[in-house]
Amino acid sequence: MTLITLHDIEQAQPVIAPYLHRTPILTASALGAMINCRLLFKAELFQKAGSFKPRGALNKLNSLTAEERQRGVIAISAGNHAAGLAYAASVMNIRATIVMPEAAVASKVQATRGYGATAVLHGSGKDLMPKARELQAAHNLTFCHPFDDPLVIAGQGTVGLEISQDVAAPDVVMVPIGGGGLIAGVATAIKAHYPRTRVIGVEPEGAAKMLPSLQQGTPVTLEATHTIADGLAAPFAGAHTLEHVQRFVDEVVLVSDAEITEAMLLIMERCKLMVEPSGAAGFAALLFNRITVAPGSTVVCILSGGNVDRQRLKTILS
Amino acid sequence: MTLITLHDIEQAQPVIAPYLHRTPILTASALGAMINCRLLFKAELFQKAGSFKPRGALNKLNSLTAEERQRGVIAISAGNHAAGLAYAASVMNIRATIVMPEAAVASKVQATRGYGATAVLHGSGKDLMPKARELQAAHNLTFCHPFDDPLVIAGQGTVGLEISQDVAAPDVVMVPIGGGGLIAGVATAIKAHYPRTRVIGVEPEGAAKMLPSLQQGTPVTLEATHTIADGLAAPFAGAHTLEHVQRFVDEVVLVSDAEITEAMLLIMERCKLMVEPSGAAGFAALLFNRITVAPGSTVVCILSGGNVDRQRLKTILS
Repeated sequence: MTLITLHDIEQAQPVIAPYLHRTPILTASALGAMINCRLLFKAELFQKAGSFKPRGALNKLNSLTAEERQRGVIAISAGNHAAGLAYAASVMNIRATIVMPEAAVASKVQATRGYGATAVLHGSGKDLMPKARELQAAHNLTFCHPFDDPLVIAGQGTVGLEISQDVAAPDVVMVPIGGGGLIAGVATAIKAHYPRTRVIGVEPEGAAKMLPSLQQGTPVTLEATHTIADGLAAPFAGAHTLEHVQRFVDEVVLVSDAEITEAMLLIMERCKLMVEPSGAAGFAALLFNRITVAPGSTVVCILSGGNVDRQRLKTILS
Repeated sequence: MTLITLHDIEQAQPVIAPYLHRTPILTASALGAMINCRLLFKAELFQKAGSFKPRGALNKLNSLTAEERQRGVIAISAGNHAAGLAYAASVMNIRATIVMPEAAVASKVQATRGYGATAVLHGSGKDLMPKARELQAAHNLTFCHPFDDPLVIAGQGTVGLEISQDVAAPDVVMVPIGGGGLIAGVATAIKAHYPRTRVIGVEPEGAAKMLPSLQQGTPVTLEATHTIADGLAAPFAGAHTLEHVQRFVDEVVLVSDAEITEAMLLIMERCKLMVEPSGAAGFAALLFNRITVAPGSTVVCILSGGNVDRQRLKTILS
C-alpha cells in the first residue's frame, strides 16, 4: 500500500471543481470566544449533496475507462456516500446502484433516487455487502468504496487543499473520522503545506475504530456502533486510511453523543448553520477540552455535512 | 411626514458598515427549481445579533448628540430589536435599557444582557410602553422605535442597497413585514435603482396589519396577533412605514403559519440555513403561490433573521 501525495490531490482539484462548490471559510467569533481561539469553519455542509462526499466520488468516477462507465458503478451506504456518489454519477452520466439498509432514513433514499441512482433496499448492516457483490458480479459493475480507496482519499483531500489555500498556516485543523477517508486526504494536504499545523481526528465514543486501530497497528472492525453521528458510524477503519492517519495525523480524540449534540445545537443557534451531528464533532472536541489548544490559536473545524431532516432533528432535540 | 430617499440610505451605509457584516447573496438552486425561478437569498440571518435589526439601530444611535449618548437610550421589544439595539449600543458605548415582557424567551433576554444592555422584565404586550415611558422620563433617555423612525428605515434600507449593488435588476424582491421598517427602507433603495423590479411584502395571516392599513389608508392596530413568526408580530403598522409602502411596494400578500413552517424547514433541510420563521415568510409566499412570478425570473428573498433557540425549534417541529 502506498500513501497518496499532494500531487494526487492537486490533480483531483481541477477534475472535480466544475461539478462542485468552492465552500467558504466562515469566521465563528462567538463560538471562538468560548474556547479562546480564532475559530474558522470550512463550510462543507454547503457542498453539493450536502456533504464533502461527492469530492472523492467524482475523482473515482473520473478514473474509470469508457467501458467501465458504460457498465456503471455500485456502492453500499446508509447516508452521505449514497447521495454523494449518486450526485457524482449523475453529472458524469454514469449509472449508479446503491444498496441501502431497509431502515435507511426516507429522505436519504429519496435524495439518492432524486439524483437518478437506483437505491436497492436490502436487509441491514452486514447484509449490504453480499448483496452489492452479487449485483456487481451479475452486471459487471465497478465497486466504489466509501473511503478506503486512494482516488477517494485524494478527492476528499481537496478539502484540505482549499483550507491550505484560504487560511495561512492554521495552528490546528479538526477533522471528523468515519472510515477515515476525509482525514487521510486532508492531513496529507495540510502537512504538505504546513508541517507544523496539528491535524486532529475526532471519533464518537460509540463508533471509535481509528483510535484502537492506531493502538493495535492494524484496522479494527467493530461488532456494533452506537452514535448519534450517523456519518461517522462506519464499523471499520480502512487499511489505506489508517496508513495515512499513522503518518500524518497528530492525535485522535473521542467525543460523546451528548457533547456532539451540544456542539451541533450551539452551531445552529449562534452561527445559523444547519450542521449534522457528524459535522459538529470537531467543535465538540474543542468545546469539551478533548484537546489542548493554546489561547489565540487559529483553529479550522471542518463542518463535513448538513444532512439532517426534520424527523431526525426532532429526535435529536427530544 | 416625508419619505426617506436613496441619499439617506447611502449616507447610512458607511456609518453602520464598520460594525456589521456585508451579508452574502446565496444561490438556492434546489428551492429555485421548485418554483421555476432563479432564487437568491440575502442571508441577513448571518448579520450581527442574528438579524437585520442592528442596521437601523446603529443609524439611529449615530444621530444622537453627545449629551443624548451620555444619558442613554430605551426601547421595548420581545426579540430581535432588543438584541439588535443592545449590540448597536454596545459598539457605540451607549447605555441601553430594554423593557421586555416577563414571558420573553430566555435566550433573547440572555442575548440582550450579553451585549451589556439592561433588560427590564415587566408585564406583557400593552404594559411595556407605559413602563418604557416612565423610565424614559425618569432618566431622560432617548426612545428608539423598532421601526417607525426615518433613521431606522434608512438603516434597514441598506439591505436593499446591498441587494441593488450585488444583483443586477432582479425581477422580484420578497420582504417580510413586521412593523414595516425593513420593507420601507428596502423598497426605497430598490425602486431608486430598478423602478421595474417588483417589491413584494409578506405578512403572516395572524398578524396582518400592513395590508388592512393599505386598504384603509391609515395605520391599523390589531387587538391581538397569533403567529409562529414572532419577528413579524408587531401589532401595528407605522405611519412612516405605511407611507413608504404606499409609495414603493407593489403588493402585500399573506401566508399562513403552516406555510411559513414548511418554508422554514425546507430552507433548513436543503440550504442548511437556520432561518427563523419570520425569515422564511418570503419563500413561503413563493412556494404556496401567493404571488405569480414568471418562470425563469430572478427572485431575491431576504432571510431577515436566524434567531431560533433549541426549545423553540422543538416546539416548531412538534
